[in-house]
Amino acid sequence: MAFFPAALDNLIDRFAALPGVGRKSAQRLAFYVLSLPEQETAAFAEAITAAKRDVRQCRICRNYTDRDVCPICASDRRDRSVICVVSDPKDVLSIERAREYNGLYHVLHGVISPMNHIGPDDIGVKDLLVRAANDEVQEVIMATNPDTEGEATAMYISRLLKPFSIKVTRLAYGIPVGSNLEFADDATLTRALEGRTEI
Amino acid sequence: MAFFPAALDNLIDRFAALPGVGRKSAQRLAFYVLSLPEQETAAFAEAITAAKRDVRQCRICRNYTDRDVCPICASDRRDRSVICVVSDPKDVLSIERAREYNGLYHVLHGVISPMNHIGPDDIGVKDLLVRAANDEVQEVIMATNPDTEGEATAMYISRLLKPFSIKVTRLAYGIPVGSNLEFADDATLTRALEGRTEI
Repeated sequence: MAFFPAALDNLIDRFAALPGVGRKSAQRLAFYVLSLPEQETAAFAEAITAAKRDVRQCRICRNYTDRDVCPICASDRRDRSVICVVSDPKDVLSIERAREYNGLYHVLHGVISPMNHIGPDDIGVKDLLVRAANDEVQEVIMATNPDTEGEATAMYISRLLKPFSIKVTRLAYGIPVGSNLEFADDATLTRALEGRTEI
Repeated sequence: MAFFPAALDNLIDRFAALPGVGRKSAQRLAFYVLSLPEQETAAFAEAITAAKRDVRQCRICRNYTDRDVCPICASDRRDRSVICVVSDPKDVLSIERAREYNGLYHVLHGVISPMNHIGPDDIGVKDLLVRAANDEVQEVIMATNPDTEGEATAMYISRLLKPFSIKVTRLAYGIPVGSNLEFADDATLTRALEGRTEI
């Protein structure tokens, strides 16, 4: 005997299918949605439909945009000689927030992961090579995450970029600013020592 | 300058408005939804719309249902002399899972909370009194949560039920089955001692 009506069970299932949302959380979210006024639930449903309909990947950098070319790629105030390679659109946001970088981006939408059957073709490495072949490009910054797969992806792409006469760099490793040495793990400390700079 | 297109920002906002979903989680969920095939996102949007359209409260017990009267209230195999009062529909599910209880329910959809301006009228206490006035009803079990507001609500309702000549009971407090005394808090241990039974 089902205790919840089918439509509610279905909504719980939909929420439970989202990453990081367990069964109990999915129930909580579904109940919350039911408690909203109808206008709000309609707006939520429409937000999902509209996002899927309007948001596409930039033809050049593959970041999410609602145009053919994203505002960053289209801007004439960005330095077109540098491309920063990130695995996710949200990494673009993080880097933009730091207000230090003024170049272009390339969003992989993933990392190479043989375990999950994600190869170079799945993350559009070819598009990046085509861009790098452009005369303007002088440096490619690999800004994938400092985990195993992010590292491997950075290494793989940097090898492919070798034949082009451009500089390939990697974000610096080290102690996070404002943190405490006590809580830094061994790997981070090792990298911080290796990368020490004169003051 | 917005880095995400408006439709994506809007979807992130919708997710962030859900209880227990922070800004970062909302981003993660929105990106995940975008990565789904269009058929899936359409189904998600439809699940929200359908749940709000089809799910209503049972006319008798106020549990969620897609009919006028829920299957439990409509069943002729349930003991109609007992009503178990819970604050949430998901509590009905928990109690049904234990397969111990065969009576009816009354779902308050909340607890009395002066801080949040939720009074007895907001949680349909009157409906419960009308049901309790029925000759069949012999016992009302208060099964609100054992927290401050749940306790206060149980006490408030039990006082209102005093004039009716029916038994009003409260779920037993004590050590959870399978747990460890070491981790039981003082309040629980005190209640477990007070409620000790002869073996």
